[in-house]
Amino acid sequence: MKRRLLLAATLALAALSQAPAIAQPAATEIVEKKVFETTGYVTRGGATIPTIRIGYQTAGTLNAAGDNAVIVTHFFSGNSHAFGRYAEGQPAGYWDAIIGPGRAIDTNRYFVISSDTLVNLNVRDGRTVTTGPVSMNPATGRPWALDFPVIAMRDFIEVQKRLLDSLGVRRLALVTGASMGALQAIEWAAAYPQMIDRVMPVIGSSEFDPWAIAWLDIWESPIRLDPNFNNGDYYAQGREPPTRGLAEALKIVTVQAQDRPALARFGRRAAEGQDPLRRIGDRFEVERFLDEAALARARVSDANHFLYLVRANQLFLHEYASSEAALSRSQARWFVVASPTDRVFMLDYNTEMVALLRRLGRPVDFAEVTGPLGHLNGVVGMAPLADRIRAFLQN
Amino acid sequence: MKRRLLLAATLALAALSQAPAIAQPAATEIVEKKVFETTGYVTRGGATIPTIRIGYQTAGTLNAAGDNAVIVTHFFSGNSHAFGRYAEGQPAGYWDAIIGPGRAIDTNRYFVISSDTLVNLNVRDGRTVTTGPVSMNPATGRPWALDFPVIAMRDFIEVQKRLLDSLGVRRLALVTGASMGALQAIEWAAAYPQMIDRVMPVIGSSEFDPWAIAWLDIWESPIRLDPNFNNGDYYAQGREPPTRGLAEALKIVTVQAQDRPALARFGRRAAEGQDPLRRIGDRFEVERFLDEAALARARVSDANHFLYLVRANQLFLHEYASSEAALSRSQARWFVVASPTDRVFMLDYNTEMVALLRRLGRPVDFAEVTGPLGHLNGVVGMAPLADRIRAFLQN
Repeated sequence: MKRRLLLAATLALAALSQAPAIAQPAATEIVEKKVFETTGYVTRGGATIPTIRIGYQTAGTLNAAGDNAVIVTHFFSGNSHAFGRYAEGQPAGYWDAIIGPGRAIDTNRYFVISSDTLVNLNVRDGRTVTTGPVSMNPATGRPWALDFPVIAMRDFIEVQKRLLDSLGVRRLALVTGASMGALQAIEWAAAYPQMIDRVMPVIGSSEFDPWAIAWLDIWESPIRLDPNFNNGDYYAQGREPPTRGLAEALKIVTVQAQDRPALARFGRRAAEGQDPLRRIGDRFEVERFLDEAALARARVSDANHFLYLVRANQLFLHEYASSEAALSRSQARWFVVASPTDRVFMLDYNTEMVALLRRLGRPVDFAEVTGPLGHLNGVVGMAPLADRIRAFLQN
Repeated sequence: MKRRLLLAATLALAALSQAPAIAQPAATEIVEKKVFETTGYVTRGGATIPTIRIGYQTAGTLNAAGDNAVIVTHFFSGNSHAFGRYAEGQPAGYWDAIIGPGRAIDTNRYFVISSDTLVNLNVRDGRTVTTGPVSMNPATGRPWALDFPVIAMRDFIEVQKRLLDSLGVRRLALVTGASMGALQAIEWAAAYPQMIDRVMPVIGSSEFDPWAIAWLDIWESPIRLDPNFNNGDYYAQGREPPTRGLAEALKIVTVQAQDRPALARFGRRAAEGQDPLRRIGDRFEVERFLDEAALARARVSDANHFLYLVRANQLFLHEYASSEAALSRSQARWFVVASPTDRVFMLDYNTEMVALLRRLGRPVDFAEVTGPLGHLNGVVGMAPLADRIRAFLQN
């Protein structure tokens, strides 16, 4: 059981083409991955990206008023695959337990959209469509690399807004997401308060404080140390990408996004054939497992995209004087979901958000999601909250 | 105030020659740094180290029975400077608030010893005396580098035992330390139960579980990525040590050993002249501060010693089948002190230790140490527990 949960957690963090095979009712919908293209996008920092392409998927039907839409925003290492399957026998999306026909977020009632962000991490997984440093810079005919403009989290929202406009969406019954998806939901609520009825940030924070900024700097530091990084210029033929550095970066994310019980099964055993008591280079079994899992993920990811994702998070709500200034713009109902054993956005971040919303007079529900996976309980353990979510949507 | 606490915390983690200048009564003792040498030491892994030298300091007087001794074991980035000053006007030791004449650990009553561990981190601070990879390997006439034998935490205790024997100590009224010092105190309690009356592990754990093993692997990974690391062979003239990797490693320790309030004063400001919204290489002020603090620490530390310290921690209680098997050997009274906002040894580690000791029928007190510094509250915030410690010592 613990092994299955750990596997699920590792996979949930990986490219979603390898997402957790959560047991589902037979009704899981087949969804299609589509591509949205938009041109002449000017970033919040003032740079122009001539062409942007991002992947997305939908379920359900938009009503004539265009007001039964739900957008699901993804976590740091996720993509659009929040619900449904791309084909029979393929894995279901990470929140499929709460999104689908008859489920908490009922696709018989709501038109549900989820898209890949800009600078998405999973650029080599064969499913993710994104624009970022790996994309062709039309001015040079080569990948942008670090010439790609800095992307703020608000840019994620602006591109999603163009996608929603193209689909005819006028109102959002709900904006929701886990972790970085929660940050996006909050950024949405501040950016477009007049079009949003409800916000459900899961395992998130309304404040990206210096502590969080520092941690994300720690996450990316192995990439900058890898001699193959070469200041982001590693796409040319014959060059090796900074896979080791990226793997170490992903390892930090993997461990911090879980909790003690998720690794307990490894005990304190040495890796096979290794002797940590006698050889300084030898490894424990848990280290070997994490090395291999991180390397597998690094092979479908891109190091520059990791740096840009970090920066987008560090620039969360960067256009507002404070979290209070941002949240005070929202007129929505809120449902904050936190994991008490979260080591990324600790419980305090969430309870502070609830207290702030209450101080601002906003209606706010609060629930805890539990399990052995720490932060990731909010990705793989949401099923027990289905009734709470359903009730929230009926208010 | 916050600035002072942050500074204190950063310095507490740094070489203790730069330790926090905590306001003290005038009575702080002048202590002398001495050197203990022992030969022909066989590690628990079976390798021989021909000569070991470690620094130590004492205060108070050993009684005729040799049973009024206290040993204070240091944290990961600490050294013997737990109490006293090396000269008037110099900074006091990190626990000087609770160790000294008339203080909780009263040097008028107890003979207090604290020593530098093997493979101590602060090899270039001018105060620390240790033996490890930087030391001369008599077989080659060059530094051992990664040929130095692996050191287990039990080896720390064995060398300290030789030191205590040389001083005539027969019983320990108390073994205590913070963080890695708590682990050493527990290792002492398991190794020499018949000579220990009391154990006070502060911000520690009785279990170094796979989660902790994984985190320490994360701590050291920047060193292994630094191209200057060269598999530990960087002592030759003309070679640069892996200072960047070591600085990034120390940065992780610094951040994880504190808590959100300790960094709050930086806000979300860009570093001077930097623009994180427009240039991907630009930094936030908190990042710049942490970069500089980490680099300053790296310059007085050694990367190979960092790796060996990590391994010593990962090998905590490695000779016992379980924490329960180790702790069941102890006949001592226990006083467990935890910081509720600890991000290294979270509160759970400490409450589990208390529960285990109670299950084993051992007398155990428990107290929390609070403040804005997370884990480091147990290093710089112990003064309010003085009466509890005094009471513990009188039982």
